[in-house]
Formats: sequence, structure tokens, C-alpha cells
Amino acid sequence: MRIAFLGLGLIGGSVARALRAPGSPAAYADAELVAWTPSGDGPRAARADGVLDRIANDPETAIDGADLVVLAGPPRACIDLVGRLGGPWRASLGAVATVTDVASTKAAITAAAERAGIPFVGGHPMAGREVTGFAAADAALFRDRPWVVTESVRGGDSAAVRSLAVACGARPVELDAARHDRLVAAISHLPLLASVALVEAVAGTASVPAADWPDAAALAAGGWRDTTRIAGGDPALWTAIFQANRAEVLAALGRLTGWLDEFRRLLESGDTDGLFRWLSEGKQVRDALGT
Amino acid sequence: MRIAFLGLGLIGGSVARALRAPGSPAAYADAELVAWTPSGDGPRAARADGVLDRIANDPETAIDGADLVVLAGPPRACIDLVGRLGGPWRASLGAVATVTDVASTKAAITAAAERAGIPFVGGHPMAGREVTGFAAADAALFRDRPWVVTESVRGGDSAAVRSLAVACGARPVELDAARHDRLVAAISHLPLLASVALVEAVAGTASVPAADWPDAAALAAGGWRDTTRIAGGDPALWTAIFQANRAEVLAALGRLTGWLDEFRRLLESGDTDGLFRWLSEGKQVRDALGT
Repeated sequence: MRIAFLGLGLIGGSVARALRAPGSPAAYADAELVAWTPSGDGPRAARADGVLDRIANDPETAIDGADLVVLAGPPRACIDLVGRLGGPWRASLGAVATVTDVASTKAAITAAAERAGIPFVGGHPMAGREVTGFAAADAALFRDRPWVVTESVRGGDSAAVRSLAVACGARPVELDAARHDRLVAAISHLPLLASVALVEAVAGTASVPAADWPDAAALAAGGWRDTTRIAGGDPALWTAIFQANRAEVLAALGRLTGWLDEFRRLLESGDTDGLFRWLSEGKQVRDALGT
Repeated sequence: MRIAFLGLGLIGGSVARALRAPGSPAAYADAELVAWTPSGDGPRAARADGVLDRIANDPETAIDGADLVVLAGPPRACIDLVGRLGGPWRASLGAVATVTDVASTKAAITAAAERAGIPFVGGHPMAGREVTGFAAADAALFRDRPWVVTESVRGGDSAAVRSLAVACGARPVELDAARHDRLVAAISHLPLLASVALVEAVAGTASVPAADWPDAAALAAGGWRDTTRIAGGDPALWTAIFQANRAEVLAALGRLTGWLDEFRRLLESGDTDGLFRWLSEGKQVRDALGT
């Protein structure tokens, strides 16, 4: 088996590390791992670490003869690569190859693969950290985490993508791309958005004086730290994610502000029973989830 | 020294446990700890555990001869107790006693103490858990946490309250009551509010169908768990906190929804640079706070 990575940062690098970790299934432990990135920095570091078998100088060389092509660059770059895989590079992409990706939204890239006419099955390992780059890659990043596998496009091999997820220690979850984007808008993109807004509501910025910061920081307890931890996410990555999932993020944001408006109405009108119910409804769901 | 607790749940019980823990300053280790609660359940459990020296059958007996009176019941009950301490029970409250409390808002109780004419210094240990009652009390709950100490009213002994905080392992932070309420609205009450609203935005309720739950729960990763952990807070307690700090909570909520509205405008208008700046401003502040 040959696996080609186009992009090799935190996520792609963690996939490669997981496949090279002790206990990796034989088919992956013995596979040839090839990678290309625009700068070549990630592949050079991975080669030096013994994680990568071969550095490719261009994408066409990387994909030549690959069984699986993993798109692991920035979301927009991946969509651009999909177009080229179906165009100028179609001949290099072998007849049996399946293309997958690891990005946070799935509808746009799935549609792009359909248009480009390439065998594609999208993937989204639901794991991340507030750091970027191959240097932060971690073989254990996906362990016991969900890894969404979306519908097969143009004959893409779903089993191969599920198998990759399992080899990385993840739990494959099958969802179609549109439903995936709707669910992650609520469970992943909205929390980040709220987390950043919480920080800004206290700290303000140039346009809103930071009246309560750092005095408020001296009072920060576990609740503040937990609710704002993900506000440290990479702004460039998240700008791309929000734009790629615009409609679903706006819908989820509308639901959030709807609930906040309802809370405001209850507090302004002194509706004690209503406030209690509003708080109880969230608690019941959250308690059911566990810690 | 004699310390009287009126109320002995999670917070009051944790104070008593901390004073009885190994390494407690001698003045506190040797102090007589007395407690009263309406049901008597907490004091009985504390007496059985050896944490409490004496159970009082009524508040007047509890405060008689006490050097420090710690109000540790529900917020509204504490304000009611303040009125009675300045009224029918004034004679039992010794001439040298200082009254303090451990509740999450400070302006209303400080004003009540001023009106009641009792020596008072408010306190707010910035620690909590998603559980209630003496059974959950923990001697280490306040360790290295901020413990806000507000202005002295009617000759209340500030040093005695700071000393109590230090004896519990906390870090006293002096703030006037009004500023405390403004800061905790932003750093504590607003995060809880946002956390519950995040859960509700995904899960909905009877009035809003739970379309995305539990499918979305299967995708929950660290960000979701962190941002929604505090949504499991006690609804009755939080209803009282929000009502006690109504004006400041509404102001903080207005700032949060203002930032969310700005995000919506940036995403709707396709302003990539604006989104990047919006995300970067929150990240800079959050990164400065550390983990």
C-alpha cells in the first residue's frame, strides 16, 4: 500500500505518526508513506523523524501509484487540489486510488470532488489542538475520537477511509456531508465562536475599551478557563472553516442568540420559574452527556 | 475563637473542612466551630465526621459568643438572615463579631448589612463544583483560588475575613462590592449563561425540537465538553445569582450578543480580514491568560 499526503501539518502529521506507531496494523506499518507540501518543511521533519518514507517535490509525483491520497492542507487549498486532481493530474492519480481529506467541513469539498470526477470519500477526525504544524503532530491525537466518514463520490472506497480511521485509533462515524456540516456547526464551530465572544465581552479591544481586563482575569476560575480554552484556536484556520460552513454556522448562531434573547426576556421580566426552567433544560442535556 | 456557620452545604462545609484539615493555622484548628441550618442535615453529617464541634438548634444559639459568623446558605436566605441579625438577634450577635458570607454576588448583601447596621465584610471564594450539599464538601476546594473580600461595613473586621480565606488556602482579592458584581457578571455568570445556551442551541427542548441531539453528541470533542461543562450548574442557585446580579448580567450579556452580532455581520458580508481580526483579538487575550 502507498499513501500520499498532500499537506503534513498537525492533522496530516498525526495521521502519519499514528500509522508508524507501535501496534499499527501491518498493512499500514508496511505501507509506503509519501508527502508533499508547498514549503516541504513538514515532509523534511517527518523524514528526519523516520515517520515518512519519501518526500515528493511536487503533488503529481506524490500521488503517482498511491492507493490513498490524504488531502491535509488548509481547507481552501484542499478544494483547489481536488480540482487539479480531476484535471491536469488525473493521469497520475491511479485508477484504483481513493482521495480523502481531514478538514472540518465536508459539503464543499464533496461537491468539488463530484464536479472534478474523482473517487472521493471525505473524512473529519474530530480532534484538534490549539497548535499547528508537523512539530505538534501526535500519534495519539485521534485515539477514541470520532472520525466522520462521508458518502462515497465517483466510486471512492469508503472501507479504505474507515480502515485508515481505525488504524489511527479513531472511531468511524458515517454521516452524509450536509448533515455533518450541520452537526459540526452546532457542536464544534458554535462553541469556538461563543468562546471567542466571551473573551471579547470581558476584554474588549481597540474599539471596545478593555475596562474589565486584567482585573477580571484575577478572578478567573475553572468555569472561565473551560469555556474560553478553545478561543486560542488558529484565526486563519477558523476564518476558513466559518466561511466554508457559512450557512450552517449562521443558522446555529441564530439558535444561540435566540436562546440568549429568551434568557434576557426572562431576567428582565423577573420570571423566576422561567429562568429556572431555562437553566434546567440545558443542565438535563449536559448531565446526560457526562463529563 | 468561635466561628458560627448559618448554612453548611458545599461551600460552608468546605470552609469547615479546610479549617479542620492538617496544616490549618493553630487559631483555626483550635477554634470552636458551630453550625445551624434549617434542616440540620449538614451539621449532623459534619458533627459525625468530626468537622463540627457543636450543632445549634437555632440561629440565635449558633451566633451567641461567635467571633465570626459565616452566612453560607442560599443567597436570598442570607439576605434575610442579615436583616434578622440586625433586628431580633442583635443582642445575641456579640459586640466584637464580624459577619461575612460566601455568596456569588456582593452588592445586595452589603447594602442589606449597611441597612441592618451589623459589622459586615462580604466574601466570595471563587470556586465551585457542579454538585451541592455538605456531602460534596472538600477541604481543598479553595486552594490557590481567589477569595474576594469586599469593603468593611459598620466596623466589620476585614483582617478577620482575609485571615479566614488564607486559612482555607485561598488568595484574598480586595474589591468593592459593586466592582465585584460587575467583574463576576463577565468572568463567571456570563460563561455559565453562554454554556447553557450552547447546549440548548444543539439540543433544543420541548418548545424547540431536539433535531440534532443525540447525533451531534456522538461528535462531541474536547471543545464541546470544555465549553459546556458548567452548564450542569444547579438551576436554583443560578436563578438566584442571575436575579441578584440582574443589571450587571444584562450589561455583560449585551456585550456578548454585540460581539456575536458583529461576527454575524462579518460572516454574512464575506469580510475575510474582519473575521480574521475578530478571531485574533480573542485569541490574543486568551493566550495571555494561559491554560
